[in-house]
Amino acid sequence: MAHHEFEPTTYHNTFGWHEPPLTVQPGDSVRTSTVDARGGDRHGNTVANRGNPQSGPFAVAGAEPGDTLVVTLDRVRITRSWGFSSSALAANVLEFDDVPPFEDEADRSFWDIDLEAGTIRLQPPERAPAGEPTPARNRIHDVALPLRTMVGCVAVAPPGRQHISTATSGPFGGNMDYNGVVEGLRMYFPVFAPGGLFHTGDGHALQGDGEMDGTGVEVPMDVTFTLDLIKDKTIEWPRFENDTHIMTAGNLRPLDQAVQHATSEMVRWLEADYGLTTREAHLLLGRMVEYDLGNMFDPAYTMICKLRKDVLREVVGG
Amino acid sequence: MAHHEFEPTTYHNTFGWHEPPLTVQPGDSVRTSTVDARGGDRHGNTVANRGNPQSGPFAVAGAEPGDTLVVTLDRVRITRSWGFSSSALAANVLEFDDVPPFEDEADRSFWDIDLEAGTIRLQPPERAPAGEPTPARNRIHDVALPLRTMVGCVAVAPPGRQHISTATSGPFGGNMDYNGVVEGLRMYFPVFAPGGLFHTGDGHALQGDGEMDGTGVEVPMDVTFTLDLIKDKTIEWPRFENDTHIMTAGNLRPLDQAVQHATSEMVRWLEADYGLTTREAHLLLGRMVEYDLGNMFDPAYTMICKLRKDVLREVVGG
Amino acid sequence: MAHHEFEPTTYHNTFGWHEPPLTVQPGDSVRTSTVDARGGDRHGNTVANRGNPQSGPFAVAGAEPGDTLVVTLDRVRITRSWGFSSSALAANVLEFDDVPPFEDEADRSFWDIDLEAGTIRLQPPERAPAGEPTPARNRIHDVALPLRTMVGCVAVAPPGRQHISTATSGPFGGNMDYNGVVEGLRMYFPVFAPGGLFHTGDGHALQGDGEMDGTGVEVPMDVTFTLDLIKDKTIEWPRFENDTHIMTAGNLRPLDQAVQHATSEMVRWLEADYGLTTREAHLLLGRMVEYDLGNMFDPAYTMICKLRKDVLREVVGG
Amino acid sequence: MAHHEFEPTTYHNTFGWHEPPLTVQPGDSVRTSTVDARGGDRHGNTVANRGNPQSGPFAVAGAEPGDTLVVTLDRVRITRSWGFSSSALAANVLEFDDVPPFEDEADRSFWDIDLEAGTIRLQPPERAPAGEPTPARNRIHDVALPLRTMVGCVAVAPPGRQHISTATSGPFGGNMDYNGVVEGLRMYFPVFAPGGLFHTGDGHALQGDGEMDGTGVEVPMDVTFTLDLIKDKTIEWPRFENDTHIMTAGNLRPLDQAVQHATSEMVRWLEADYGLTTREAHLLLGRMVEYDLGNMFDPAYTMICKLRKDVLREVVGG
Repeated sequence: MAHHEFEPTTYHNTFGWHEPPLTVQPGDSVRTSTVDARGGDRHGNTVANRGNPQSGPFAVAGAEPGDTLVVTLDRVRITRSWGFSSSALAANVLEFDDVPPFEDEADRSFWDIDLEAGTIRLQPPERAPAGEPTPARNRIHDVALPLRTMVGCVAVAPPGRQHISTATSGPFGGNMDYNGVVEGLRMYFPVFAPGGLFHTGDGHALQGDGEMDGTGVEVPMDVTFTLDLIKDKTIEWPRFENDTHIMTAGNLRPLDQAVQHATSEMVRWLEADYGLTTREAHLLLGRMVEYDLGNMFDPAYTMICKLRKDVLREVVGG
Repeated sequence: MAHHEFEPTTYHNTFGWHEPPLTVQPGDSVRTSTVDARGGDRHGNTVANRGNPQSGPFAVAGAEPGDTLVVTLDRVRITRSWGFSSSALAANVLEFDDVPPFEDEADRSFWDIDLEAGTIRLQPPERAPAGEPTPARNRIHDVALPLRTMVGCVAVAPPGRQHISTATSGPFGGNMDYNGVVEGLRMYFPVFAPGGLFHTGDGHALQGDGEMDGTGVEVPMDVTFTLDLIKDKTIEWPRFENDTHIMTAGNLRPLDQAVQHATSEMVRWLEADYGLTTREAHLLLGRMVEYDLGNMFDPAYTMICKLRKDVLREVVGG
Repeated sequence: MAHHEFEPTTYHNTFGWHEPPLTVQPGDSVRTSTVDARGGDRHGNTVANRGNPQSGPFAVAGAEPGDTLVVTLDRVRITRSWGFSSSALAANVLEFDDVPPFEDEADRSFWDIDLEAGTIRLQPPERAPAGEPTPARNRIHDVALPLRTMVGCVAVAPPGRQHISTATSGPFGGNMDYNGVVEGLRMYFPVFAPGGLFHTGDGHALQGDGEMDGTGVEVPMDVTFTLDLIKDKTIEWPRFENDTHIMTAGNLRPLDQAVQHATSEMVRWLEADYGLTTREAHLLLGRMVEYDLGNMFDPAYTMICKLRKDVLREVVGG
Repeated sequence: MAHHEFEPTTYHNTFGWHEPPLTVQPGDSVRTSTVDARGGDRHGNTVANRGNPQSGPFAVAGAEPGDTLVVTLDRVRITRSWGFSSSALAANVLEFDDVPPFEDEADRSFWDIDLEAGTIRLQPPERAPAGEPTPARNRIHDVALPLRTMVGCVAVAPPGRQHISTATSGPFGGNMDYNGVVEGLRMYFPVFAPGGLFHTGDGHALQGDGEMDGTGVEVPMDVTFTLDLIKDKTIEWPRFENDTHIMTAGNLRPLDQAVQHATSEMVRWLEADYGLTTREAHLLLGRMVEYDLGNMFDPAYTMICKLRKDVLREVVGG
């Protein structure tokens, strides 16, 4: 159960079968830093190419295709006092003919982050960075919004030696941009490549459901996680677990198909790990299933299927 | 501000321009009863045709196309000690090739409702009604699930003199099967027909997000609501409001387009009623928007777009 | 086998259970006139409300739910020397952020129709009707395009006493806007209402695949059709037949689901009427199936599934 | 204008930035062989891993990101007297609850190919290969179907150093499975990697529209093509051209979005290369656009947008 400190010097813009700079034993933990979605570090220096550059990948000794990689997010902290977001909802989340005219040209917004108060606040117009249009002052400038630190990208290497853009997601996880990926979450990924190869990056300070503007107040972070392994256990889509819920993620367009994958995976989970019959799984989900919209911005959309653990415990005992 | 008691003697299986059996003044309240999705009343007698038979429609004097009908759900109560549900998730919420084999033939499940305890419980196999297959005993039989009383259908008459099946929904509301339609909710509908013509029915005792099995433990109910009117105010999709959130509903296939309608309607609401500029609305939603999956079973799917009222109040004051 | 001449005096803007102004015997033919999508007649007078006003509905004596109505389009002719169209592709057929700026404000285009030459030609800008913006002259003004006369709306009354807007379509047919609905086509519809109740209207002089601009050069027409009946034969979606192909229509959003309905219906047709086994139907369609895009503009999209009759004859003999 | 003969010794199961085994000058032609979808060569020997193994990639000297690669299919010939297909339509092209029971277990079908007669014919059940279930004899066994030789996969390397599974497609082309990719077709691809890197494989002897069973009677082929380059010309999606039509391809789920990409790309093509104004492009497409269903089986679906060249010539002259 060793702990590793790892400062990346290179970053990847694909989820892929990259040479792992660090290989750990099952049960080990790692603290690493991540840069923001455009490659900016804690000092605001651009140290990687834009497009969700990833730290890692981190290999787990002994992980082979057919296993499950378990990643627990032990600690997730923002390492900069500011972040940026888009200033507009994406075209594909609005009606086809809803093309809003805006009052200013400020496509990008900059936010001050107060880690102690746990809030973010839009920077006043007069502080617009050089080269950025000055936004019109508006009432959002006067409000402190609650911090909700999360990780946009968590992934293993995709199947079949693929290298896939960090813009998107799939059965391997990826840029799911689900605002439930927070400190304390346990995540399960199918292993496709030897070592599993865990990638992470794209920190967010506050992202609405669905990442409807394509951003999450983009920030660099310090992330500490524990890597573990379940040998000879095959899953098809990412699975999550927190104190209250078990969750499955489906990543695809359109949302309908993301729901289908997440729901079928939840049934498989209940059958394989909790011993429910198919009938029990369907009866329970029909009454108690919950869904979250992960993202509806990226090339693949994400829907999360959830079930309360207290109710599940009542069913299976223990 | 009169109160009306109304016991239906006929029910409608379309949302339409039906002759209203009761016309009230703006501000009046109505208590009526509804039957279950197959037309069963509180005594278990079938008094209407299956397929979400509706009570009403109730007209509001003075309501004209271009107005907004306001309906507040003052009291929503189940009036029978049992309900029924499907026993299987729908084919369209599972992966295309996920065709589950079941342990028994019991497609329909019957539940005991304990209103005092606030729970529902699957009836034991030996109480299977005559003509229904006996289910295999399973562990769901041993669990009490929490009651969550809601109304499946709330609608006004559709535009253009249409009569539309109570299986579906649209800009007029309808069979949205959103488990947030509960006691205390305030709802806003566009008025398309003179009088508005409010329909309601299809009570549910406990429905998972999305009504993924197509049912909600179907029950008859007593519903009390207040009908009010906002003259010369045009909205495009149903809007809801409870203590914590304002909400808009988009009703369409696929889920993507339901999201698009709900989100654009939320922007319009923020602009028209709260005075936000388009930029303010986009900035605020990008950070704080929430979504619920209404239903993914009916001919039109439903997505709900939500915004916290406390944050909105901080922005607009008051 | 009587022939009926029928000049409508009223038109319907819903497909519904309307009182039929004419009831015919199976095998009878009817000639009627239709108005254009905005209610304009052959003289350019507006005689009906806009939104695809329908002629009929025409009842067939003896038609009952569970039967199939057979309609053969014997003759389809345009009755006016001009028509109109949109001047722009619809927002939902272009990329989400593709919002074209146009050179002029002429949202509507007017076309001269030369029935003898079989062509249509954009009217010169100087003939823009009063009240319409003058279009910029462009090179489309200089080209004669080939006439392709078709019928946008063909429908029976929907199930369950519904009255559904003539903007859309469903299992009952409707505003399918498929440019293969031309003179000579034989069509099969499920009967939902006594008499079947055939509606028709919305003539087009030239419509691209998918009706991507929402119009088809809108014209009034003279339509002659034969109405027939297949007793006790239930189909689920409209079916068509011409000299070369049998075809099924699926009407729904998104296109994926329209394809699913059309394809399953084609399999059912091959099984029930041509005696193919499921395996034979799948093997044959896998190799030989064809698809046309009916429309991708209306509330329900339309996909057409087609199979060559010569190949089918080789399989089944005859 | 050299000609190159190239026999692959290795094959790729990703479209990627692979080391090109052959680099040619713009204008050069190449003849190469391809293996079938499971890696089978002309002798029936398995020489590559299953999943559309690709020949190449072939580099064009001087090709840089921002250029357009032009590939003309000069000659496309099947090199084996048999091929295989699926025996069933895919689950995702049928209605959600349409789960066909089959008469036999023969999931895979084997076809004899008669190149001289230009036909394919299902092999009789008694010739079922060892290890394959024996199919029930059916009437498809008695029919000769017309050969329609096509290429399933044509692609360049994807953007951003991605390596993407040969199961799917995107802006780089890929496994589009469009039955219009036949001898004589000219294809245009955006260049993302130095050299462009043209991949090809996955030959089909006869595939229905949409590849609804996921196969096309899979065969090895000999393919001769000419590679050319348009410097400093950027396109966004693959474009095709044959004697009668110009075409654009959109590759994505669902079909709706594939249509959107193909249609917007067609407008861009008409504007940039044919000098049409946006208004002219929209007016012309509204009347004359055609669509083909490329595939609805692969991870990304493909829709083709087409315009007749004779009509286009009338508009632009020449």
